Amino acid sequence: MALLDSSKHLQDSVLSGVNPDLASERLTASFSVEKLTARLDGGAEHTRMRRAIVEAIESDPAFSRENQYFQSQNERYEAAVRRAVHLQKKMREMGWTENGPEIKYIYRWLSGDIAFLLHRVFMRSISVLGSDKQVAKWIPLATEHQIIGSYAQTELGHGTYLQGLETTAVFDIATQEFLLNTPKISAMKWWPGDMGRSATHTVVFAQLYVHGKCYGVHPFIVQIRSLQDHSPRPGVTVGDIGPKMNFEHTDNGYLMLQNVRVPRENMLSRFCEVQPDGTYVRWGSKKINYFTMTTVRISILSDEVILPLMKACTIAIRYSAVRRQSKLKPGEQEAKILDYQTQQQKLLPQLAAAYAFHFINIYLHELFDRGYQEIQGRNFDSLPELHAFSSGFKAMVTQYCTSGVEICLRACGGHGYSLLSGLPSLYTRVLASCIYEGENTVLFLQTARFLIKCFMAASAGQPIPPSVTYLSSAKPGKCPAKDKLDFLSPDVYLKAYEQMAIRLLSSNAAKLQHLIQSGAKKHEAWNQCTVQLVKAAQAHCHYITVKIFVETVEKLDNKAGIQKVMKHLCDLFALHGIFSNAGDFLYDGYLSGAQMDLVTASYLDLLAVIRMDAVPLVDAFDFTDKSLNSALGSYDGQVYHRLYEWAQKSPTNQQVSPAYGKYLKPLLQNRLSKL
Amino acid sequence: MALLDSSKHLQDSVLSGVNPDLASERLTASFSVEKLTARLDGGAEHTRMRRAIVEAIESDPAFSRENQYFQSQNERYEAAVRRAVHLQKKMREMGWTENGPEIKYIYRWLSGDIAFLLHRVFMRSISVLGSDKQVAKWIPLATEHQIIGSYAQTELGHGTYLQGLETTAVFDIATQEFLLNTPKISAMKWWPGDMGRSATHTVVFAQLYVHGKCYGVHPFIVQIRSLQDHSPRPGVTVGDIGPKMNFEHTDNGYLMLQNVRVPRENMLSRFCEVQPDGTYVRWGSKKINYFTMTTVRISILSDEVILPLMKACTIAIRYSAVRRQSKLKPGEQEAKILDYQTQQQKLLPQLAAAYAFHFINIYLHELFDRGYQEIQGRNFDSLPELHAFSSGFKAMVTQYCTSGVEICLRACGGHGYSLLSGLPSLYTRVLASCIYEGENTVLFLQTARFLIKCFMAASAGQPIPPSVTYLSSAKPGKCPAKDKLDFLSPDVYLKAYEQMAIRLLSSNAAKLQHLIQSGAKKHEAWNQCTVQLVKAAQAHCHYITVKIFVETVEKLDNKAGIQKVMKHLCDLFALHGIFSNAGDFLYDGYLSGAQMDLVTASYLDLLAVIRMDAVPLVDAFDFTDKSLNSALGSYDGQVYHRLYEWAQKSPTNQQVSPAYGKYLKPLLQNRLSKL
Repeated sequence: MALLDSSKHLQDSVLSGVNPDLASERLTASFSVEKLTARLDGGAEHTRMRRAIVEAIESDPAFSRENQYFQSQNERYEAAVRRAVHLQKKMREMGWTENGPEIKYIYRWLSGDIAFLLHRVFMRSISVLGSDKQVAKWIPLATEHQIIGSYAQTELGHGTYLQGLETTAVFDIATQEFLLNTPKISAMKWWPGDMGRSATHTVVFAQLYVHGKCYGVHPFIVQIRSLQDHSPRPGVTVGDIGPKMNFEHTDNGYLMLQNVRVPRENMLSRFCEVQPDGTYVRWGSKKINYFTMTTVRISILSDEVILPLMKACTIAIRYSAVRRQSKLKPGEQEAKILDYQTQQQKLLPQLAAAYAFHFINIYLHELFDRGYQEIQGRNFDSLPELHAFSSGFKAMVTQYCTSGVEICLRACGGHGYSLLSGLPSLYTRVLASCIYEGENTVLFLQTARFLIKCFMAASAGQPIPPSVTYLSSAKPGKCPAKDKLDFLSPDVYLKAYEQMAIRLLSSNAAKLQHLIQSGAKKHEAWNQCTVQLVKAAQAHCHYITVKIFVETVEKLDNKAGIQKVMKHLCDLFALHGIFSNAGDFLYDGYLSGAQMDLVTASYLDLLAVIRMDAVPLVDAFDFTDKSLNSALGSYDGQVYHRLYEWAQKSPTNQQVSPAYGKYLKPLLQNRLSKL
Repeated sequence: MALLDSSKHLQDSVLSGVNPDLASERLTASFSVEKLTARLDGGAEHTRMRRAIVEAIESDPAFSRENQYFQSQNERYEAAVRRAVHLQKKMREMGWTENGPEIKYIYRWLSGDIAFLLHRVFMRSISVLGSDKQVAKWIPLATEHQIIGSYAQTELGHGTYLQGLETTAVFDIATQEFLLNTPKISAMKWWPGDMGRSATHTVVFAQLYVHGKCYGVHPFIVQIRSLQDHSPRPGVTVGDIGPKMNFEHTDNGYLMLQNVRVPRENMLSRFCEVQPDGTYVRWGSKKINYFTMTTVRISILSDEVILPLMKACTIAIRYSAVRRQSKLKPGEQEAKILDYQTQQQKLLPQLAAAYAFHFINIYLHELFDRGYQEIQGRNFDSLPELHAFSSGFKAMVTQYCTSGVEICLRACGGHGYSLLSGLPSLYTRVLASCIYEGENTVLFLQTARFLIKCFMAASAGQPIPPSVTYLSSAKPGKCPAKDKLDFLSPDVYLKAYEQMAIRLLSSNAAKLQHLIQSGAKKHEAWNQCTVQLVKAAQAHCHYITVKIFVETVEKLDNKAGIQKVMKHLCDLFALHGIFSNAGDFLYDGYLSGAQMDLVTASYLDLLAVIRMDAVPLVDAFDFTDKSLNSALGSYDGQVYHRLYEWAQKSPTNQQVSPAYGKYLKPLLQNRLSKL
């Protein structure tokens, strides 16, 4: 009965102890959690720095996210602006800089719940696309926050297909200005962050017209609000696009321009310029813009996509170790739900995927760093490959992580559905990543186009980029595995993935060729293959992910049990993929039905093995309780006390609802007829 | 430029016309939309009644859901209570009654966005589980709303596993009362609707103890709030559980009881009773409770699960017919996104599923009505079959529809992510159905247990229920199809599904037997098979759904093109299932890889065929614009104007944020150091 005394003292004493069901999970770890954390951070010194920064931020109440789940869109926005302004102060105090090593840990902790993120994109786009003169003029203003910027690309009628943007910028020789207009409603800018209520300036992407000729989409710096009183500038209609599934803290905005004039100098002109007489001049390569977009897709993966999956796994796995429900063995205590095979099958493949994507993300960053160096040396050869990588992996990782977070949410039953679990907001957040920075289906098809080209080149004996050389090794065959243990050999499953990826691609190539030979036009043939082309692109990315996971495990230190547990996760990731996409492996008989049984047996065995390390494996992600912000996922496993404690703070419990006096009281007092 | 004039007049004139891109879709329908609507309603007279009721509700501003997406949890709750009270008045005015034919249309339109739904469950549970005397006492009070009821079953620590509930009710002979207690925090009632802020009474499920002996879970009527001033009764702690992913309008509550006494007469006692001397008496069968739970699972499917999918399809398909993006053919106008094969592959299988589930729902209701009649005649033979059906189909339909709504949401890109599209709230709503009324994995396993029993019985030559007689027809074989057109024959695909379902079940039975023979205990063996048992249960439900769709199409009227278009949808539903679960059909060679190519070809051909009727097929669901409440899905297809018009009403545009004066202004005026 004592637990029911809701006095703060008692609550605290209960919350200070770790739930024994969770504590016991940590006693039997087969590896050193601390060493794995250091490995994930890239070295123990990075772990130390990260923890120091997290400590500095968490101890500052200005950054608290404590009541976030109770706040309205207006409150969330105000809090995000407050945090952004406070962060400037904090950075000065702590000596942190925008280019310092701390910055990634700061933003990672904030989980994007802060204003002025698009202000940073505004600055980046000026740095990359602006002339030296433009950079010298605008960057100091933006750095000092004398202006607040945004990035106005997407329109009501156009997203991923940038060529279709409808905003116009017409050069007026007489005044040496560009005249910007929103010619119809679908041309209205829609979605830009920081624009709905904050920004004073924005980079507007518009079709450039000179002497009636269209030169395509170009970026222009436009002031949209007064620096004195923040009112919209003449000709500018600007506002907030309203409620969304998440991102309540961000003022995503709309913008209409009617005869808004900006000086000729406001077109960003590192690579092209309209000269005073209207002559259009272009320097350098268009491809560099292309590269910027490409790098953004890779840069979001870590914090916006993989991190939410890691957090969701942490919450769901810890909860599954303390939630007991029903009896596994008659007469015994109710079982931890993590002991049910079905719960393991839901959660552990997501955990394996979180590790797989952590490693592929490192690989992609190395690849892009190399690519960037080549480009600086004016060698653009690797661009198509990098573009194909960024498109396909952005699509695959966002899709997989979104589905993974949803599985974690559902696996927590009713409590997962409460906002207090933290899972709904992780889900609605990561879901957006499937949509922004390029729609996933469009991206997969761009990867597919690259792969088909490479496949054709390989077939013709021409050289192809290193990442796709496997395409030229196509040889039909059968999997040699005879025992379930054979499927724990990376050689065996890698070969199966490779075979499958090649087969999907070659059959698409054949179908395309067949359709064209039968008289279909090229674009018709392409559209008729797109469902299967998406599949082929996915298969390629899946194969590469398994391959990089295998190579990472091989390079790991054999000490402290880390290599062994990572090998288990790698095997699980690979076999889960085969189990879940059995048709692709059985189709051409590369695997037989009997071999698929062996895969299944090995896969199910692995679940039971990894289950023993499940809690230590999420502990290694090293999220603080404040960063998880979850009543179910805290380190101490006191889920029921915390749910109750948090619920009491809800605004629904802070006021007597006006509904009582207005409706319930008269109703209960039988005055229904008078209502 | 005219469209930019945001004057109300111009907006209205634009909104009065149908977008030509949507109008053109309606000119080429291959069937009569009105006749299909009547068929879905169960006859033209039902359509007329439904429309009259919808008209009566929509014309009453008290029921408006216009600003719903902008409201806080507190506002949503107040509005839901207001609507519930107003509905009582409206029903009296219109002469509608709780048992009349109108009621289902009323609640369908309200989409559950109303208070006192649990009050109805409170009444139903008293009617079913209460003695005549209890019914006579409580039902009139509840009907007149002199009390407001709730239904307190789920606890913090226990959901689907009811036997584990921890609340206690100890009989005190001295006072002839039950003493109710929440012995620990996990025993706190958690989730009951209408309880957080509204209810005066609730039915509490608690472990009954008499003379120290536990008799299991029983229902007790408990008053929780004063009828005078609504304050919690002594010993009662009650409140709201806080924010959730949806259901903001519902006051899901928590409840702790400390030595709360209720008279002996408050235990619901149609089937059992504690007599004054403490003797426990039971009449009739426990199974009837079981049947109540079973029927609830079926009763939610239509409005809470299938309807959201129909709405999501309506929104996404209409939007896809007016959204133009990128070029399918070089040099032409940008294409409607519905013309891309990948978009068809996302949306059209969901449309086919919505129809499939509409028909299976009718079938299930007929089955349950027959079962109920048998039970009233004291014949309980069909109970296990009905239970297996309700469990499996609840799980399958909720899972499929949730994933379907999510696909529709994602298929609308950024605009789908705006709450104004209506899709996020459909998704977060239908997602809950996977969790409530029994967790889906647990339910699938209950179906699997029934199927395994039947399979064993069939193998032993014993009789089995009619719905599973196919289990005894197991004969290994090969699919005879030779041409892609062969896969448009229901006999061909039905046989493939049947074969697959039998194979999954028989291999599970064999694995179970093998494990037990190898020395595993029964419960261990079961847990080791659960991942595959879930698959087998899904396969069974999938097969039955296809079978019922085929039988429904066969019985349809051949006139007005309806049978033909339904046949297309049925084929699509079936082939999409084979295409998406290829491994299950290829595994034992029932289908060869070459035949899978034929399936794929037929499936992709069907997408192009059904695309032509896609808009008329969603029009036939006959949702009004107000019922869809979607800026993307309205009948007129004026999506961009409506998004803009609705966004302007958002509270984020109604006030100047305090953030400007507090943070932005000082920041912009370079007083950063003074903040």
